[in-house]
Amino acid sequence: MSFKYIKIAIYLLCLSGLSKVSGETKNVLILLADDAGFEMGAYLNKFCQTPNLDELAKRSLIFNNAFTSVSSCSPSRAQILTGQASHVNGMYGLHQGVHNFNVLPQVTSLPNILRQKSNGSILSGIIGKKHVGAAENFRFDYEQTEEHHSINQIGRNITNIKQYTKEFLTKAKNENKPFFLMVAFHDPHRCGHITPQYGEFCERWGSGEEGMGTIPDWKPIYYDWRNLEIPAYLPQTNIAQQELAAQYMTMSRLDQGVGLVLKELKEYGFNENTLVIFTSDNGPPFPGGRTNLYDFGIREPMFMYSPEPESRRHDTTSAMTSLLDIFPTVMDVFHFNTPNNTIPKTTGKSLLPLLHAEPKPDENDAVFGSQNFHEITMNYPMRMIRNRRYKLIHNLNYWSYFPIDQDLYTSPTFQQILNATITKTSLPWYKTLQTYYRRPEYELYDIKADPMELKNLATKPSYKKKLLELLQLLYKWQVETDDPWRCAPHAVLESQGPFKDNPACLSLGHDALGKPFADYEKYVIV
Amino acid sequence: MSFKYIKIAIYLLCLSGLSKVSGETKNVLILLADDAGFEMGAYLNKFCQTPNLDELAKRSLIFNNAFTSVSSCSPSRAQILTGQASHVNGMYGLHQGVHNFNVLPQVTSLPNILRQKSNGSILSGIIGKKHVGAAENFRFDYEQTEEHHSINQIGRNITNIKQYTKEFLTKAKNENKPFFLMVAFHDPHRCGHITPQYGEFCERWGSGEEGMGTIPDWKPIYYDWRNLEIPAYLPQTNIAQQELAAQYMTMSRLDQGVGLVLKELKEYGFNENTLVIFTSDNGPPFPGGRTNLYDFGIREPMFMYSPEPESRRHDTTSAMTSLLDIFPTVMDVFHFNTPNNTIPKTTGKSLLPLLHAEPKPDENDAVFGSQNFHEITMNYPMRMIRNRRYKLIHNLNYWSYFPIDQDLYTSPTFQQILNATITKTSLPWYKTLQTYYRRPEYELYDIKADPMELKNLATKPSYKKKLLELLQLLYKWQVETDDPWRCAPHAVLESQGPFKDNPACLSLGHDALGKPFADYEKYVIV
Repeated sequence: MSFKYIKIAIYLLCLSGLSKVSGETKNVLILLADDAGFEMGAYLNKFCQTPNLDELAKRSLIFNNAFTSVSSCSPSRAQILTGQASHVNGMYGLHQGVHNFNVLPQVTSLPNILRQKSNGSILSGIIGKKHVGAAENFRFDYEQTEEHHSINQIGRNITNIKQYTKEFLTKAKNENKPFFLMVAFHDPHRCGHITPQYGEFCERWGSGEEGMGTIPDWKPIYYDWRNLEIPAYLPQTNIAQQELAAQYMTMSRLDQGVGLVLKELKEYGFNENTLVIFTSDNGPPFPGGRTNLYDFGIREPMFMYSPEPESRRHDTTSAMTSLLDIFPTVMDVFHFNTPNNTIPKTTGKSLLPLLHAEPKPDENDAVFGSQNFHEITMNYPMRMIRNRRYKLIHNLNYWSYFPIDQDLYTSPTFQQILNATITKTSLPWYKTLQTYYRRPEYELYDIKADPMELKNLATKPSYKKKLLELLQLLYKWQVETDDPWRCAPHAVLESQGPFKDNPACLSLGHDALGKPFADYEKYVIV
Repeated sequence: MSFKYIKIAIYLLCLSGLSKVSGETKNVLILLADDAGFEMGAYLNKFCQTPNLDELAKRSLIFNNAFTSVSSCSPSRAQILTGQASHVNGMYGLHQGVHNFNVLPQVTSLPNILRQKSNGSILSGIIGKKHVGAAENFRFDYEQTEEHHSINQIGRNITNIKQYTKEFLTKAKNENKPFFLMVAFHDPHRCGHITPQYGEFCERWGSGEEGMGTIPDWKPIYYDWRNLEIPAYLPQTNIAQQELAAQYMTMSRLDQGVGLVLKELKEYGFNENTLVIFTSDNGPPFPGGRTNLYDFGIREPMFMYSPEPESRRHDTTSAMTSLLDIFPTVMDVFHFNTPNNTIPKTTGKSLLPLLHAEPKPDENDAVFGSQNFHEITMNYPMRMIRNRRYKLIHNLNYWSYFPIDQDLYTSPTFQQILNATITKTSLPWYKTLQTYYRRPEYELYDIKADPMELKNLATKPSYKKKLLELLQLLYKWQVETDDPWRCAPHAVLESQGPFKDNPACLSLGHDALGKPFADYEKYVIV
């Protein structure tokens, strides 16, 4: 018996032993929404009906401070599966088509590392939207994704999702293997720029209406837009209300899909030994949401259900949580250490301890953000640190206009904002298109006093100390994670040759040329 | 015998038949320099000694208007091997490390298509610097590259290059196959930011000096920098002269390497049936050169030797030539049509007809340029059209400062410019760092009257018609090649759903917000 097999035998012994001692958690199920915000009863939305999500929340620890580190689909999924920020794993933007982003060749991911560490004794699966690559970096044992089906059929047809879930669970049962399953719904993503005939959010696709086809397991919920309360982030207009009605309808498909998957989990007897995490990849596809590092773009719903009896249930945590924490959490469930001897390190932490005790909150608890691209043409890299009170955003291409993606551009909400701007018509929105497009290099917000992130404190002399403090913490994180952009935009990173052991940011002399734009003040990191 | 094999048999018959009828060309050898400009006798450089290149030039058609469509290493190599501009094939920037650019999954390349079309009866090989990927998109039958060796050993050690050339030619001879071989030298690329101990251009590596090792076949040529004439593009300083002395020394290694490879070609009897093309990937690594679409960055040396007796020799052509033409030229040698039924089309044309007659020059003959990234952090996309008289550059992220790469940054020339700028010391350079960094959206130059591209005519009312005409031709090329950036920076491209058959550029309303920068004038494409 080789050392390798002894290690695996010990691992399997531990696993069975631990199951008996500590409770039941043997498997992990991640339920991932696509562009969802807080449109659910569990997060006190009074209109959007989500009984299945609410039921899960009742059994779960509810996160009130969960944030994605990146507000874009492929990079967010890559962060979940690799435990690394976008600038670390190389998934800088969207994976598909001309965007063609892939993680760096050497990057590993949950399915790969679990297979390798358990020598194939853990079964991994993905059902729904995958949207990451290259294929070899994310090789699940079981895959039913847009690579094999049309995205709606595998991401929005909850009857299909149910069937594939059954297939996967049957396999796990027959092979008697612990499993890691990710069910990645395509709802409530927009589809207006591709298939508007189904509604702006594809909310009518499969609804049984004429020409829409039927999803047998879906009972659509229709909303009268006139009743809906508009979140403060959106223009206070009928258009926004109509958008919400469509978005809420598609949330019902997501919600019922979650219900179906959880029902199967129970019927297969896995409810008693499976950790379930529900969350979303990034904020809703509205201005200020997806592709932004404002809270509307990065704050995520998150429930974590643990089958272990002593776990917190229907309780909330205010722990500052990053989706980067999911990777070490899953590793922790399977009793593996997160590889931290690799350079650059993963920076997340296991969330399992939260199931047992709420840590003492500290005002300095922080999460980080790293946005680079979305579409390949949308170069607007940003870095962010957010603690309980403050948020600092560093806009690295602040000279440029903030870019608008193809999907958002055609949305009724953005079109209304654009048209009002062009025709100089007033619009009840908390921003103007001008302020949305043109951002200063640094944005500092006191989130407690200014949750809408409207008053930039970065240039206020009284906040200079706070700004410097946060900038230094942000820069420290960038150095620790070997951020290729950490010297941008006013310096060049040198890290080879004479700089190999002491990488340095060397000035481009922009300052020497004066300040061509008056709307920022440059602070130097001491 | 299946249809497939009949087709191959016909192909082989044709090939042997055609060899007899039309002369001898059976094989193609591409000799590629790395960052070389016109530092050679054949292009009337009076100082740099390049007897082997000059000898090749004497037997060749010499190109006086050859241009790369992109001024960056990986994208340029990808353009040569795919026949597609950077924005078409997806190699938007550097391939290695954190940059991680790869061509789009469906893109084919010369080695792949030749193998497929000839059913493996053509042997393909690459020796030296490859620098493109993914591997499956560029699979040569024979590869000796930086993926198997240190880059200096395979790219600058001309004795190694000679040995591998012999190995490849032996294989071609033994297998009796026509071949496509690319020998890609790493000279005269800089290395100052990685291994400055070998000199700024690694010019002393392998020179036999103490600690430098020896390349048996290389007889280094040393230059006294005080004698050297400085090209107009560079600061007229001692520093620039010293840079030139180093660059010229490394050119001697390239030159002698070319000599060795051509000697082997002859000794193996392939001189009589091999088309030889010598060129360089992009302009020299100086400000205004590599990563720029100014002539210093895109104008390339190019010789084409044909073994066929009636070919033009020691003759010059002024045909407007793009490195995009190499792909269809190689296809033409092997009697294959360039795949033009694919969308987007390759836009190059075979250069073989030039071997027989110089076409009548037309002032409107044009080449195109498409630059996107170099390093991943260097987002400064540009598009260009250049005819015999005019050049128009469209800077898509003109708001931003022009980016400086890690390699150029540490160069003595750039450091001198930067320091002079910071200390406000005067410097005899044809630009200032301010004008270099800050570029208007449109740059229009009358190259005939202003070869240094100093007088921007884009905002001159008398050139408005010319500007519009060139803009329209440029935009037409972008549409034909399905450029993802073709609506940037003031509009969003919509090409799906309702726009599938009629893709459109939809305004972002920047104009409605006024013109925040006074240094450009926006022209609308009619």
